[in-house]
Amino acid sequence: MTRLYSIGIDLGGTNVKFALIKNSKKVVDKRVLATKDYKTKEELISQLALTVSDILRVNKIKRSGLTGLGIGAAGLVDFNRGFIHSLTNIKGWDNVPLGKILSGKLKVKVFVDNDVNVVTLGEHKYGAGRGFDNLVCLTLGTGVGAGLILNGSLYRGPSFTAGEVGHIPINVRGPKCNCGGRGCLERYVGNRYIIQMAKKLAADNKQSKMYKLVEGKVNKLTPKIVSEAARLKDKAAIQVWQKIGQYIGVALSGLINLLNPEIIIIGGGVSLAGKPLFDSIRKTVSKRAMPNPASKVKIVPAKLGEDAGVIGASILAASEKNK
Amino acid sequence: MTRLYSIGIDLGGTNVKFALIKNSKKVVDKRVLATKDYKTKEELISQLALTVSDILRVNKIKRSGLTGLGIGAAGLVDFNRGFIHSLTNIKGWDNVPLGKILSGKLKVKVFVDNDVNVVTLGEHKYGAGRGFDNLVCLTLGTGVGAGLILNGSLYRGPSFTAGEVGHIPINVRGPKCNCGGRGCLERYVGNRYIIQMAKKLAADNKQSKMYKLVEGKVNKLTPKIVSEAARLKDKAAIQVWQKIGQYIGVALSGLINLLNPEIIIIGGGVSLAGKPLFDSIRKTVSKRAMPNPASKVKIVPAKLGEDAGVIGASILAASEKNK
Repeated sequence: MTRLYSIGIDLGGTNVKFALIKNSKKVVDKRVLATKDYKTKEELISQLALTVSDILRVNKIKRSGLTGLGIGAAGLVDFNRGFIHSLTNIKGWDNVPLGKILSGKLKVKVFVDNDVNVVTLGEHKYGAGRGFDNLVCLTLGTGVGAGLILNGSLYRGPSFTAGEVGHIPINVRGPKCNCGGRGCLERYVGNRYIIQMAKKLAADNKQSKMYKLVEGKVNKLTPKIVSEAARLKDKAAIQVWQKIGQYIGVALSGLINLLNPEIIIIGGGVSLAGKPLFDSIRKTVSKRAMPNPASKVKIVPAKLGEDAGVIGASILAASEKNK
Repeated sequence: MTRLYSIGIDLGGTNVKFALIKNSKKVVDKRVLATKDYKTKEELISQLALTVSDILRVNKIKRSGLTGLGIGAAGLVDFNRGFIHSLTNIKGWDNVPLGKILSGKLKVKVFVDNDVNVVTLGEHKYGAGRGFDNLVCLTLGTGVGAGLILNGSLYRGPSFTAGEVGHIPINVRGPKCNCGGRGCLERYVGNRYIIQMAKKLAADNKQSKMYKLVEGKVNKLTPKIVSEAARLKDKAAIQVWQKIGQYIGVALSGLINLLNPEIIIIGGGVSLAGKPLFDSIRKTVSKRAMPNPASKVKIVPAKLGEDAGVIGASILAASEKNK
């Protein structure tokens, strides 16, 4: 019997999303759980198994019709062993052999990987990165991370920590970063620092749309509101994205000089800022990166949006090539 | 008939070195030419072919006993086509199909690659990088470059420009670099900037051994003399290497966070500074890089020395796996 189906799970701090996928790309069924409804990891793992069983039952799919189950989770994951060392947004998940537990319960193959790697696989196979063998998929949000496809394969690194673009230092004497380093990219363009910059610019420009959108309560500013103000042509908001784009562009220039990628895909909440951000990144790269690799690289927004996680996770299960 | 021999050529601005290598590792014969004795690229290419023929004749080796000829050259080289786009240190070598010309003249397989890539192959196969599948091989000198072995293979990048560690910016608002960027690593630790720093420190410390070794003629300072003074425990000279090591350590921290290498090998003239330089690099990395990948990576000096180029080049020819 041909195995047509795979299941992808996006294990996040807020939600756990499931997708049943047919022929590697068609989403046939979806489920969402609220992560916080489950008090312990044991409860949540049981619910993962129950939900998968239920998806199979409802869709009348036998286990023999499933290539496997793929899971993406934000944290340090040993892909080879399906072992979670730690999760960034869910407490109590240190040293969990999730692959082994779930494959024991469900009698299907289970693959577990880092969430950004999984999104990168998704963008590579079905999104903005189709047809490119060398790409960087950057996610901008609270944290700044990336997945690397090099010579056609996901590059995880020997201890599975590769891709930490957010912790490339762009300033030798820069401010301290959570990671222990100094002047890391994330320390300039992580959500909270974007908000910090926006607050200051809004407070200094009380006529700005950014200031007016929050009725002067600058503590209410979010990257989304800054984007909205920028779309309304607010100079202060546009200035925020220009500065953020410069920092990102400088870090990407180093990455381009080092890895010579064909395409850099940018996703995550912050990327929704769109044109003013991307214009600034591209301008900085064309000024700062070396001419040859700069002329070869495209810098584009991600395509898969909120489904990138489940689709990417299902790819882990659909193709042994991603091992 | 088994092909036992390969020939490696290190095509540099000062010398062209040849080595005949048996069973992939034993150097059987060596030759050196002075690059400037040849006025045009045509003359030099003819001499390359003549020298190879002579090496084969003298050592009584038939062409059928040769797996091929490998060449490493400082510049932009399309490895797939054996095509030199440009050389850094030899004028008039733009757009030369060297592989095609030499294989036509000699009737043997010819492989051409960038010099740093070739050194990286050498260190990976026979030097400090033996047994590691993920490594960075950094060369410190007038320029700062690197070769990357990822998942066991040399990563050249789609337009063959990967590895430019010297052009990772470590300071957003740093000084302009030759490459067009700003605040690049090379702009702080390339030979001429080491000398600049040493001159200033020597002039400010007239009691220093660094100052005395050049009899107060600080324009005569070289990285080699700074190393000599450091070995004599000269504080000013040690301070030079500490500062240089900090800059290198910051750039390597970004590289470690991004690529999670198992080992970083450091070669090139500047690396001969030894302990004060390596201590400072390691200390900076342990402070600045993320704890997990920092704890996994070794930072060690290169092993192959001056023969790295010819040995590495011969590997290109000895193994199709390096294609």
